[in-house]
Amino acid sequence: MAKPVSIEVWNPSGKYRVVSTKPMPGTRWINLLIQNDCRLEICTEKKTILSVEDIIALIGDKCDGVIGQLTEDWGEELFSALSKAGGKAFSNMAVGYNNVNVDAANKYGVAVGNTPGVLTETTAELAASLSLAAARRIVEADEFMRGGLYDGWLPHLFVGNLLKGQTVGVIGAGRIGSAYARMMVEGFKMNLIYFDLYQATRLEKFVTAYAAFLKASGETPVAWKRASTMDEVLQEADVISLHPVLDKTTYHLVNKERLAKMKKEAILINCSRGPVIDEAALVEHLKQNPMFRVGLDVFEEEPYMKPGLAELKNAIVVPHIASASKWTREGMATLAALNVLGKIKGYPVWFDANRVEPFLNENARPPSACPSIVNAKALGLPSSKL
Amino acid sequence: MAKPVSIEVWNPSGKYRVVSTKPMPGTRWINLLIQNDCRLEICTEKKTILSVEDIIALIGDKCDGVIGQLTEDWGEELFSALSKAGGKAFSNMAVGYNNVNVDAANKYGVAVGNTPGVLTETTAELAASLSLAAARRIVEADEFMRGGLYDGWLPHLFVGNLLKGQTVGVIGAGRIGSAYARMMVEGFKMNLIYFDLYQATRLEKFVTAYAAFLKASGETPVAWKRASTMDEVLQEADVISLHPVLDKTTYHLVNKERLAKMKKEAILINCSRGPVIDEAALVEHLKQNPMFRVGLDVFEEEPYMKPGLAELKNAIVVPHIASASKWTREGMATLAALNVLGKIKGYPVWFDANRVEPFLNENARPPSACPSIVNAKALGLPSSKL
Repeated sequence: MAKPVSIEVWNPSGKYRVVSTKPMPGTRWINLLIQNDCRLEICTEKKTILSVEDIIALIGDKCDGVIGQLTEDWGEELFSALSKAGGKAFSNMAVGYNNVNVDAANKYGVAVGNTPGVLTETTAELAASLSLAAARRIVEADEFMRGGLYDGWLPHLFVGNLLKGQTVGVIGAGRIGSAYARMMVEGFKMNLIYFDLYQATRLEKFVTAYAAFLKASGETPVAWKRASTMDEVLQEADVISLHPVLDKTTYHLVNKERLAKMKKEAILINCSRGPVIDEAALVEHLKQNPMFRVGLDVFEEEPYMKPGLAELKNAIVVPHIASASKWTREGMATLAALNVLGKIKGYPVWFDANRVEPFLNENARPPSACPSIVNAKALGLPSSKL
Repeated sequence: MAKPVSIEVWNPSGKYRVVSTKPMPGTRWINLLIQNDCRLEICTEKKTILSVEDIIALIGDKCDGVIGQLTEDWGEELFSALSKAGGKAFSNMAVGYNNVNVDAANKYGVAVGNTPGVLTETTAELAASLSLAAARRIVEADEFMRGGLYDGWLPHLFVGNLLKGQTVGVIGAGRIGSAYARMMVEGFKMNLIYFDLYQATRLEKFVTAYAAFLKASGETPVAWKRASTMDEVLQEADVISLHPVLDKTTYHLVNKERLAKMKKEAILINCSRGPVIDEAALVEHLKQNPMFRVGLDVFEEEPYMKPGLAELKNAIVVPHIASASKWTREGMATLAALNVLGKIKGYPVWFDANRVEPFLNENARPPSACPSIVNAKALGLPSSKL
């Protein structure tokens, strides 16, 4: 039997019934739904991950659409229940959708939405934040100070890295990797070395122009190069951030052998996916090299860490908060709500899921479109023409 | 009676006897002294602050110069002892010298050195590091993760600020304030508002040029303005960093009334001097405004914090590590050693204490000069001509 779930109801007279499995940041997504004829029900149960039974109870007999989370398993059972209740749309509040069995959604004719287009800068800023915190040993220094251990200035206390003039290495120079590279190059005058199967033309062009701009301003220009192998980046960079996609070729991309190639005092950042690093090998490497530091937002067996990691002073560990800025999370909530609303209203699918600015403008009505539907093709949904 | 102090001796056959009251980072300062006819003695006693008696014991009967720390009190007694032992020079490994009674040094004809010129970028990078850590709540997120409290992704978990497009406020736009402003403007595309009694012409000119460069690259330009009052900065900025000098006019510059003028979710950074903030009022403000965050490197009554501060999750506190990069600390040690060595050798005083690059080049002999002597005028020391 499904446990009872507490529900907060907005606009009880709405014609369509939309359910959100979690409270989401901001209020715009709520207003958009209730002003467009939806009765919105938000589950407020204090439980991190809802079970399939919980969600079936939430869907009930009549439900037009559901906004859900990456932590919930959407397969045959849920899409069948949603379809039986008259539902037409489900949207993750997330870019990814590996929690969704898209074939099952197709079978029941349910549109599956996601929320790309608002995570790039926030994720890159977290990588920068972890880079700087690791460089200056902020977490261990805070613990020391808070613990009352400080009794006076010392020449050797928490000596870290000056980033200026050092080299930043980027593995995977897509949107997020390129945004991060620019933060470190422009903000801290670091030289750039990157590895990617594809040439990051825009990034190269920008950094070249920026170097010329610095030179024209009478300053030391920054340098960049594209590495021909990943090992070249590992050997040369002082700070390395991982931004590859996760697939068979990138599983344990950073392993014991590759860690050994890095500088003894290097900084390694991972805001991509946990399994890109062999976490057990990393723990061993951190133990052997006390001045090697890491900043990790993701873990191999999330929400758990490999044994030993939590005890290491040269690691900074945060709970998957790469997209956790107010702007991004409110944007994700808005896009998820508009995916569901758009499908209910019969709107077409937006022409470019990564160019969603018009949906985020608080002073204007959003376009009459679903911002991003991953199975639009399979369902034969029309595309909006701009 | 002075306690015995453990001493490490380098080049026992050196003609001049130089004492360092602490081990200092790097080895170049050691090599420079012992290769220039100095017997170097480094006190390695495990005690954060040496007493006057300890230092008198270190000086002994024959001592040509001492390298010391800001935490030690240099007055009549020590300069008299140093002078009696034949000493000609004392240098702080620090920019400041409020631990030194310069009149007493003048009376005994002892040169007092300090080490400016190498702290700007490292200090500004710490302010940036604290800004980013506060924006993304890195310390509390790390504590949560390490404490095993994470059981899955949640839409509201540690939601922080996206810096891009927000406004950075700088109070005091001298060398460090300007360097910090540029890091935040260039790295994170923040708009700038600053307050300073003097116009920061170079900074204004650079940011203007940078905005034009961004525009020419097809991007949104950044904006800047000089505020006519400090309150204007407090009201408008999302992240505010304090970089004033400490004097009567800046004591408790940020007090209860001024805190109340800031945005409820603002971030305040202090890497300048503790008493610039009324710390008790700050603790109260942090308690009342859980989303107001601070990053503090300095405290009113260092090494202590005001009651309550250590318990607050919306504060990041680090133990006065603004200059704690390897590059800066090794540079400070080198400059302090060269101050003492230069005076012993009878060299003139360098023409500009803030342009010390030639002293830091590891591949060349340093100039025959004292990098920075604060009482050069009073002692009538000649200046080097470049």
